[in-house]
Amino acid sequence: MINDDDTIIAPATAVNESGLAVIRISGKSALLFLNKFFRPAVRSKEMKSHQLYLGHIVDHDQSVVDEVMAVYMASPHSYTTESVAEVHCHGSRQVVRRIIDLAGLLGIRIAQPGEFTYRAYLNGRIDLVQAEAVSRLIQSTSELSRKSALQQLEGHLSRELYRYAHTIKQLLVQIEAWIDFPEEDLPEESIGKISLSAIGIYDAMVNLMASYRTGQHVHEGAIVALAGLPNAGKSSLMNALLKQDRSIVSDIPGTTRDLIEQSTQISGIKVRLVDTAGLRHSDDFIEQEGVRRARNILTTADIILLIMDGSVPVSDLFIDLLAEFSGLQVVLVINKSDLCLVQDDVHFFSGPIVRLSAKYGEGLQDLVDMISSLLLQDHLSSSESPYITERRHYETLLTASQHLNSFIKNVGLVDLDLLSIDLRAALDSLGQITGVITTDDLLNDVFSSFCIGK
Amino acid sequence: MINDDDTIIAPATAVNESGLAVIRISGKSALLFLNKFFRPAVRSKEMKSHQLYLGHIVDHDQSVVDEVMAVYMASPHSYTTESVAEVHCHGSRQVVRRIIDLAGLLGIRIAQPGEFTYRAYLNGRIDLVQAEAVSRLIQSTSELSRKSALQQLEGHLSRELYRYAHTIKQLLVQIEAWIDFPEEDLPEESIGKISLSAIGIYDAMVNLMASYRTGQHVHEGAIVALAGLPNAGKSSLMNALLKQDRSIVSDIPGTTRDLIEQSTQISGIKVRLVDTAGLRHSDDFIEQEGVRRARNILTTADIILLIMDGSVPVSDLFIDLLAEFSGLQVVLVINKSDLCLVQDDVHFFSGPIVRLSAKYGEGLQDLVDMISSLLLQDHLSSSESPYITERRHYETLLTASQHLNSFIKNVGLVDLDLLSIDLRAALDSLGQITGVITTDDLLNDVFSSFCIGK
Repeated sequence: MINDDDTIIAPATAVNESGLAVIRISGKSALLFLNKFFRPAVRSKEMKSHQLYLGHIVDHDQSVVDEVMAVYMASPHSYTTESVAEVHCHGSRQVVRRIIDLAGLLGIRIAQPGEFTYRAYLNGRIDLVQAEAVSRLIQSTSELSRKSALQQLEGHLSRELYRYAHTIKQLLVQIEAWIDFPEEDLPEESIGKISLSAIGIYDAMVNLMASYRTGQHVHEGAIVALAGLPNAGKSSLMNALLKQDRSIVSDIPGTTRDLIEQSTQISGIKVRLVDTAGLRHSDDFIEQEGVRRARNILTTADIILLIMDGSVPVSDLFIDLLAEFSGLQVVLVINKSDLCLVQDDVHFFSGPIVRLSAKYGEGLQDLVDMISSLLLQDHLSSSESPYITERRHYETLLTASQHLNSFIKNVGLVDLDLLSIDLRAALDSLGQITGVITTDDLLNDVFSSFCIGK
Repeated sequence: MINDDDTIIAPATAVNESGLAVIRISGKSALLFLNKFFRPAVRSKEMKSHQLYLGHIVDHDQSVVDEVMAVYMASPHSYTTESVAEVHCHGSRQVVRRIIDLAGLLGIRIAQPGEFTYRAYLNGRIDLVQAEAVSRLIQSTSELSRKSALQQLEGHLSRELYRYAHTIKQLLVQIEAWIDFPEEDLPEESIGKISLSAIGIYDAMVNLMASYRTGQHVHEGAIVALAGLPNAGKSSLMNALLKQDRSIVSDIPGTTRDLIEQSTQISGIKVRLVDTAGLRHSDDFIEQEGVRRARNILTTADIILLIMDGSVPVSDLFIDLLAEFSGLQVVLVINKSDLCLVQDDVHFFSGPIVRLSAKYGEGLQDLVDMISSLLLQDHLSSSESPYITERRHYETLLTASQHLNSFIKNVGLVDLDLLSIDLRAALDSLGQITGVITTDDLLNDVFSSFCIGK
């Protein structure tokens, strides 16, 4: 990322045929530049901060480029905390391109992807975790991913991390105080207190790390695959599940691939429901290919709904299928519960079981609840406790926890100097998450995933 | 279009992953509704008009949906002249969907495409010609189409039409004054004056209609096809033309089809440059198909650049080609002017001729100027005179001019009553263009082409 005090510009909205597009300018000369090419309809002595003005963007030869609204936001009350100007023009590529070209002639540089948020971070308005949340929020595709990103943006996760850092700092102060008085032994009582405090934070870290799998489901969505022998009722169940949630069926195109697939939301998580080919041996090449793809998706699925026709006895083929899925998260769905005369004995399966009738909808809600609790691991749906969605956070937190664990194991046993090294390393890792401590590589990794104009 | 006083909502910007999206609300309850789900960061007694406030959109249970900026624009100082509120949220489909869903629960109706502009028209802020200009501006893909739409939006064309209507109304007043005094004969002098005045307007109308072809080029762009025998230098010329204009080569994807095709701008007009297969008889099926497609595009091209290798004698095949294009707008391009030893005699062609060297770039600007003058018909490039880009305007203007022509031919010859009928019919047609006189069908036609949120 560039560190300069250029004034930068980029479209802040998506640019396509639309009523409106917003172009954002940030930097200490934002107002100066705005005044060079914005001519307000009603002349006033100076633009007030946060006030929308109707007027025109004009060319160097004063010809009108577009009728716009413009607003200026005085530092530090802006997204970047710098002086910011916005031009609200007609939503046309040609208009936006022309205005940005014009700004270029005035000496405003086109912003890099993420550069506005980068400046907000550099200027201390948000930390790195919050900066990442902005990108997550923009990319959110489900209710829960929106909520989770927003909480992260509002500082839920940051506060938790600062709490760890604060406690570890206090431990460090104590340890270093003792280092200054090497003649005195550490009182047992103090060691106990220190350990307790460190263990408290360590447990919290482990808890937070445990939320990562859920966090991934929340952010990236989950794959729920329907499997079973032919005619078990897979497709009916798929339709029933989609109907159940029709009001929130995703309208994002391009999800239907070679397998029959539909996106929906279950408890606010984006779920790719995949209906696989009936798994059986076949000599038909195309059917073989279907089975191959089905097995492929099944190994990557977060949950496999293994559907069994409850109205007929269990076949050996089905038992084979069960064996094939061992080690995967399987829910046994006993379908055709309306006809369910035969199959009551399911001793062969020890995992979660749901009985339902896809045809009549009975038991469907039980299945939805089951999926939701497996994806959310029960520890998220209603609580406001923070959780992590980023691999970077998970990995760095892991490092921090390992150092803290080493401290806990060694406290009272090794030199204070060594203990303080562990604490400092743990602090460093936490600082890398929130961005107190950074490297160029880290910043590039974080901000390169941003869209332009943010 | 719906005529009601509902408060309406729609995203005003394109919605895709982006820094920002703007959601617009219009109607007399806009502020009331905004206050129901917007919670400003700093409480104030009431929102001032045109002032941006930082805050949150909150759910019915007060949980935060997004961190936003909101602004309220008091009637009549808004796009629709109604009370308007805008929410500037994060540019995420999920966030936008959630906010609009929430607004729906509050009783705000989702706007139809074009409904905001329709209300601006209904409330008299703009006329129908200006409303159409908004849509044209948004769709503009070249500098000239942007400029032309903007001029139309700013009232250039409307003023011209009002001038016609004003004059025709004056004529009508005079004619009707005479109808009230049937005992007096029309003085010759008055008939002369009236005729002159009507002819002045009629000529202006004819002029304006003549601008329609240019207007189409401006709005829709033009097709310039390169044709010629194999090895005449078509592709070199294509590259040279694109290089010439590299700075403004269109970045709109998907233009390259089966024919080699590239969009560029020439004098601010969007031009699809199409390089066609060398036109020769072939037994190869694929080459035949190429030739078929080439002939197809050539018949629809606005300009054919027929390229001739100037370094070799003219072949009969080439003369045949020329004959094939008779009736089309052909520019004869004599290429390889650097080698041009042989071909000076071009008696066989009476249209525009440009000599150039695609290889060395000599003469290229002459060709660009020639294309530009043919597309703009010389009567547009620098002038600010209004011109028409809409078929609707052209056709209705044609009707108006026919009635006026009938008036001019009959003045002094037929009853005053009949003359006044012609004038009224001409006025009616003009009123249909500007939207003083409308039908539901007309309004539907005009506004159905709008994007949602405008």
